[in-house]
This record gives sequence, structure tokens and C-alpha cells, in this order.
Amino acid sequence: MAETYDILIIGGGPGGYVAAIRAAQLGFRTAVVEREHLGGICLNWGCIPTKALLRSAEVFHYAEHAKDYGLKIAKPEFDIEAVVKRSRGVSAQLNGGVGMLLKKNKVDVIWGQAKIASAAKGKPVEVEVTDPARPAVQPQNPVPKGVLGHGTYKAKHVIVATGARPRVLPGIEPDGEKIWTYFEAMKPAVMPKSLIVMGSGAIGIEFASFYRFMGAEVTVVELLPQILPVEDAEIAALARKQFEKQGMKILSDAKVVKVNKTASGVEVVVEQGGKSQTLTAEKLISAVGVQGNIEGLNLEGVGVEVERGIIKIDPYGKTNVEGIYAIGDVAGAPMLAHKAEHEGTICVEKIKGLDAHPMKKTQIPGCTYCQPQIASVGLTEARARDAGYDIKVGRFKFIGNGKAIALGEPEGMVKTIFDAKTGELLGAHLVGAEVTELVQGFVIAMGLETTEEDLMHAVFPHPTLSETMHESVLDAYGRVIHM
Amino acid sequence: MAETYDILIIGGGPGGYVAAIRAAQLGFRTAVVEREHLGGICLNWGCIPTKALLRSAEVFHYAEHAKDYGLKIAKPEFDIEAVVKRSRGVSAQLNGGVGMLLKKNKVDVIWGQAKIASAAKGKPVEVEVTDPARPAVQPQNPVPKGVLGHGTYKAKHVIVATGARPRVLPGIEPDGEKIWTYFEAMKPAVMPKSLIVMGSGAIGIEFASFYRFMGAEVTVVELLPQILPVEDAEIAALARKQFEKQGMKILSDAKVVKVNKTASGVEVVVEQGGKSQTLTAEKLISAVGVQGNIEGLNLEGVGVEVERGIIKIDPYGKTNVEGIYAIGDVAGAPMLAHKAEHEGTICVEKIKGLDAHPMKKTQIPGCTYCQPQIASVGLTEARARDAGYDIKVGRFKFIGNGKAIALGEPEGMVKTIFDAKTGELLGAHLVGAEVTELVQGFVIAMGLETTEEDLMHAVFPHPTLSETMHESVLDAYGRVIHM
Repeated sequence: MAETYDILIIGGGPGGYVAAIRAAQLGFRTAVVEREHLGGICLNWGCIPTKALLRSAEVFHYAEHAKDYGLKIAKPEFDIEAVVKRSRGVSAQLNGGVGMLLKKNKVDVIWGQAKIASAAKGKPVEVEVTDPARPAVQPQNPVPKGVLGHGTYKAKHVIVATGARPRVLPGIEPDGEKIWTYFEAMKPAVMPKSLIVMGSGAIGIEFASFYRFMGAEVTVVELLPQILPVEDAEIAALARKQFEKQGMKILSDAKVVKVNKTASGVEVVVEQGGKSQTLTAEKLISAVGVQGNIEGLNLEGVGVEVERGIIKIDPYGKTNVEGIYAIGDVAGAPMLAHKAEHEGTICVEKIKGLDAHPMKKTQIPGCTYCQPQIASVGLTEARARDAGYDIKVGRFKFIGNGKAIALGEPEGMVKTIFDAKTGELLGAHLVGAEVTELVQGFVIAMGLETTEEDLMHAVFPHPTLSETMHESVLDAYGRVIHM
Repeated sequence: MAETYDILIIGGGPGGYVAAIRAAQLGFRTAVVEREHLGGICLNWGCIPTKALLRSAEVFHYAEHAKDYGLKIAKPEFDIEAVVKRSRGVSAQLNGGVGMLLKKNKVDVIWGQAKIASAAKGKPVEVEVTDPARPAVQPQNPVPKGVLGHGTYKAKHVIVATGARPRVLPGIEPDGEKIWTYFEAMKPAVMPKSLIVMGSGAIGIEFASFYRFMGAEVTVVELLPQILPVEDAEIAALARKQFEKQGMKILSDAKVVKVNKTASGVEVVVEQGGKSQTLTAEKLISAVGVQGNIEGLNLEGVGVEVERGIIKIDPYGKTNVEGIYAIGDVAGAPMLAHKAEHEGTICVEKIKGLDAHPMKKTQIPGCTYCQPQIASVGLTEARARDAGYDIKVGRFKFIGNGKAIALGEPEGMVKTIFDAKTGELLGAHLVGAEVTELVQGFVIAMGLETTEEDLMHAVFPHPTLSETMHESVLDAYGRVIHM
């Protein structure tokens, strides 16, 4: 006997489980199909466990610089097994938490690999759940108590929220030994002495930052001229300067043309400016982006439109096939957990018939948790100019901020971009201590179509790093105080 | 020969020097009279050097708990001389910075104690500058090169920005040896083994937190039933629980009735619930509030209205006497640097004839940098109810936040108060890691008269502590996800 749901969500990552809880709140009978781990990559192999690793690295870094704070610490050491164990423990705790939340909200969890068996107008969508086609990285086997297993399920609405996986370049296939993706980089059994990181997006740079702080020789190879390619050029340059000061080697405008595995690690042939060089290291981390998990769902079979690996949706997550929706990474960039969560919420609210608001993609912030941290929302200076805006640009450096000096974190900058005609905040770009926690103020501001006037009148508390946000706005209008 | 200025500001603290820079930007010929140190108490003996001390304590605390992060640190120690030296160095650096900013903006610095000699309609105000009446704590003697000295100065507009000093209770006069104010607490020559802190406002609690983290036995005595009396009761209770967990002793609803100095320190007689007890400690920190520096200015002589120690002003800083203005602590609560800065800006913009906006005092945030941190803006739950609002209250604890878990900072809460009728955000109250950096988002929101809807639509980045802000809003409307 097939179970019938109002809403069945394929994938229990941040997009899927948040959509499920919201759906349950709205009174829908809801299920989540998950093949591997509740919380998805983000919680188990992404955002969360990296933050735990980076926290250990941060505290280790403080200890190494104890003298700067008036402290005496003989010789700080780390126990990589304990560092990894802590990180895995954080994921396990939150993974368990998601299970409890779903239970509390009476969301059924169905264990296995989902495939859309049929979708026809006026009939419920049928979903078959079987064994996962590929071996799980962290299999929850046997099926946890109280969850449902294999079989065919029916639902009025099916939301595809299957997330993404590391992109693999031909000839540089990860082997889990010498060529790593984030899975292996997240749980080193021993600390490598040297690593090469291919790709300088958020994932690559966070691992580069972690391993460098833990003492490894780290070389980052980036294809484009700019590291952190989606960020504002000035912010990326400032971050780069800091990374290099910390001893990281960075090759940009550089292409990995060949990777040889050797007895002791890898040889990586890099071409840069017409010249070729061979780098050696114990490990290569491949961080060249992610791609949506659209395979095995029978999307073609039921006629769901897919374009360049992305499921096509309307502003509320609806695909071209009635009853089928998509949210999160499979529905396109930016492939970020918070975007997936909001898409999930909007999707189920629209199904409910509520007055759901489409998300403004230009107002989705992005964060990179390297040292110094990077955070941004909206248009970069270059993109604002390309879009034809006449702009005013404000800049304020952390060196002019009292709290930054007191913390011993004088390296950072807040850059703000305004439409010169209307005063509308078009973008904000931050690098420095705690900026991932600061950026939300600009997000709120942009959502309310704030102008420079409103931000100037806001009383930022003293002494905080957030005062740099205020000063950056003042600077855009020639009114900066502490510079 | 008297110099004649457009604007002369008495006091070079955050209110005064920011007003001076803004005045210079607006084209005014401007001077600041300062008797002791540019940057005032805030920069030299308040906000800034305490943040430096607390940073050392924070890093020391991490080192002591190294094992929690997978690290091995034998036996962390601190060198109190080096900790204090770092803190004093931070103040000195920023103090020098203010001097440079004033110079760059062509603001004259006049060295000495100011007294308003005369103020008459249609005539410039006359200000006499002489030797300070009381010995300076940190005298800048001789007068720094390039600044002006004693004499009589004339100005079209005089802004009083003389700040505040510690309030002294009769019989408990600070002696700098055994009974301290923040001046001595800021620069201990040796680490006291035990302290009693009288008063649990921001200043008292920050020192209590610092000394406790550095290993001292700390007892806080608070007259009122609630510590951190201006904060929301629930937030204060949560903070108290943490302080007590850290080993701080707290006596609330308790009155210090007598202080005896002994050979080894102090004996403090405390009455609580009709019973009396005698506490002993090496030092007593008196942190029973501050009072405005209104003396010696000849305010009475020129007829400036003062009420209960506060100079009466209009929403733009104007007193009842033409040409005389007041900003910052002398102009009333909240006695906070960021309030003084904004008042200074508003005052000179109004003098210029710009369309200055009066400050909304309900939208001024407050921060306390203890561990865990505390930050708030707007009405507490109790005050909102007292004001007759029908309210919705949202709460979200850090334990449900992934970043908090990854950081190892699971203790915290964000509480939001909405007007149930309109959805307007009336107040936000936070306790936990980095909340002093989070609160600005709510400040921006309140300035824009944000409703719950707007905040729900804002995409807070994941994983950040700031997601707790979003969840708190969702909770107020029965929509919380991670709880």
C-alpha cells in the first residue's frame, strides 16, 4: 500500500528539511526521502563541519600568537584526530537535531534513493524509493527506527531538493587518497605537510586557510586572474594579501594541466603565463565547484525541463510539470544553503496559497570563513558599472576602527556601492574579522530598499566592528569620520 | 588676541571630536578644548581599553579550554603587566589617531580647562581656557606641539561635550589603592586574588567578567533584584546563569552598607533580605554609575538650564542660551559614546542649516562585552507591556544554531518584541557570542520601521550566528524552524 502525502520532498538537506518543517507547520502531510544523512552535505560535509575545523584552527592561531595578547603559552600543539573528532561530533549532533525536528513536526522520513515514477495532470506524483545507486559516504544503515523504507509513495506535490556534489575534472579524478574532495579534506587521518588546492572559491579557500593555520605548506591554483572570483576585486585582493602574509602560496591565472600520483603524493603541472612548472605536495584538494544531483530521478522520463544541469523553475520553485518543484542547488545558483532554505519556504507557502514573495537573488549574501573572513551581498563594483549604474563607492578599513584594534584584528575593509542617482544600496563587500556576522545588516537594509540617508542615521553601537559599515556609507558620500 | 571660531567644542571625547570633524567637513572654523586626553574616557579609560583587556581574557580562556578544540596547551599563563601594556597601547594608538584626524581636518586643539566667560545674544560666546582644576589622570604635559594653550577664545557656537566621571557614594570614596574606579581597575599592577564589584551595570559586569576569566574570585553586589538592570529580565537571567557557571558570585537585591579598609584589602558589609554579611576581598571596584561633568563651566553664570545634573537641550542639542549647545553624557541618558557621536553630528548639521533628523532614543543600542556578550535595542518585554502594547515575543536559543555549535558557543538567546497589531519591531535583546556585532541589523531594521514580514524575507547567511535573529522573528509568529 502506497502512502499518500500532500508534499514529498526528495532530499533532506537544508533546503529539503526546512521546506518539510514549514510544510508541516502549514498543515501538510509531509515526507522527506533521504538516502544518506539528514542535513545534507551542508550539515554533514560542508558548511558546518568546516566551521568546526576552522574554529580549532582559529584557537590554535591565537595560542601561537599568545604573546600578542600578553599571554605565555609554551608550545601549542594540536591533535588532528581530536580536531576531526570534534568536527564530526558537531555534525553528528546537528544531524540528530534535524531528525528530532522532523519527528517533532510529524514529518515522515523515508530512507533510500528516490525516483519519480510518474507524474500526470490531476493525479498524485508517484515516487519509488529503493537502495541508493552509489555507496553512501556516511551511510545510516540500518534504517533508523521510526523511519520508512523502500517502496512506492504518492504525493500531490513533489519537491526535488537533491543538492549537489563536487565537480570532477577529467584526468584529476579524486581517489580519496592523494586527490581529495571536501569529503577527505574534512577528516584527515594525519596532518599533511603540504597540499595543493585547485580552485579558490569558498570551499577551496576555506580548506587552504584551515590547513595553512595548522602549519601545512599550502599552494592555491586558480584558473582566473582573481582568487575568490565571485567577490569584489578589491576585497579579493585584500584577502589575497593577507593569505600570502600568512605564508600561503597563490598562483592565479594558472591552469592545472596534469596531475601525476607519485609514491609520496602528487605532482601537479601548472601552466601560468605561457610557462609550465611542476608542483609537488602530499595531497591535492580538488575544489573546482559543484554540480547538481539531477541524475537517477527520472526527470527526463516525466518531462521535467533541465537546462545545463539546472532544473528550470518559476519564481516559486514550480517546474514545467504539474506537481513537481525544485529548490536549492539543483535549481541553480547561488548554490548556498540559505538560498535553498528560503526557496523551500517560498515553495511550500505558494503551494498553500499564501502570498509568497519571490526571492530577490541579488539580495542573497555569500560568506567565506577563511581568515580574514569574507562576506558580501549585491553587486560588486565591476558588476554595478557593467549594469550601467552611475555609482558612489564607500570604503572603510578596519585600521580606523577601535574595536578592531582592541581585538588585534586591524586587517579588513567594508566597501559599499550606491546608486548615485537614487542613493539605493546596490552592494556591500566585506573582508575582516567577523564580517560573516556583520553582513546581515546590509541584507536587511537592501531588502527594505534603504538609501544612504537611512544608513547614516542608524546608530551603530560603539565599540563594534559594525561601525565600519556606517563609516563605509559615510565615506561614499564624503563624510567619513575616522579616516 | 582672542581667536574666533565658528564652532568651539568643550571636550575631545567621542561626542566632541566627531562633532568637530563633522563641523570641519561642513566648512566651519572649528576648535576643541581638551584638558586631559583626546578621545575622552571612552577611548582612554572606558570602552576601548576594556575591550583590549577582555580580548586578552578571551584568548586566555580559549587556551585554558584548548582540549575542547582538539588542542594541547600545557599551562597557559598571563603576564598582567603585558596585558595592561597592550591595553594602554591600544588606547595610545587611537588617542594619537584622533589627534591626526583633527589635524587633517584642520580642527584646532586648545589645551586646558574651559569655562564659558560670557554669552549674550548677537555676540560670540567667550570661553576662557586655563589650567585644569583637578589633577589629570593622564596629563598630556607639556602641551603637544601645534596645539593652542591658555587664553580667551570666541566662538559663534559653543558645544559642551564634557562627558562624565564615576559616581561616588559617600563613605565608599575610591582611594586608588583598595577601592577602585574604572581607572585603577583598568591597570592593575598585580593581579588581585579577590575582588568585590559594586554595581552590575555594563562597567561593573565587564570588569567582573575580565577578572573572573583571569582567575580572580569575583563577587558582584547589585542593589536591584536584577543584574544588568537596564536589560530585558530574561536576558539578564540567562547571562547571570552563565556568570555563576563561570564561578562568579552574585548578590542581587543586596546593599553595600559599609566598607572598611583593612591591612590586606577591604571588608564590605552587605545587607540582603534583612540579613547582614561581611565579605572580604583585596579590592573593591565601585561601579555605581557615572555623572555628567557640568561643574566649572560657569553654566549657571551664563544661565544655561540644568536639571538634576543634566543640561536641558532641544532635539538638536540647543540649550536655552543662544549659541550654547550640549551633547553626550552631559545632555542625558543613555550615556553612550555612539549616542554622543550622533548627537554631535546632528547638532552641527542643524547649525549648518541642513535637514538634520532628531535621534530616536528608543533606537540606540546598548552593548556589554562580558562573556557571554549582551546587546539590545528598543523596548524590553516589561517596558513594552508597561507602555500598553499588545506584543508578540520571539525567542531563539543558540543551541539550535549550527555556527554556535561549531564555535563551541551554545549559550545564548535572541529575543524579539513585536507590536502584535502592526508587526512593528519594538525591541531586540541578545545574549551570546558576538551579539554586540549582530545587534546593528535590528537597529537598521527599527530605523526603517521594519515589520516581521520584512525580517522573515531577509536571507540571513548560513552558517552564521545571525540566523538566530531570523529564527527569533519566526518564533514570534509561530514559524520557528530549528527549535
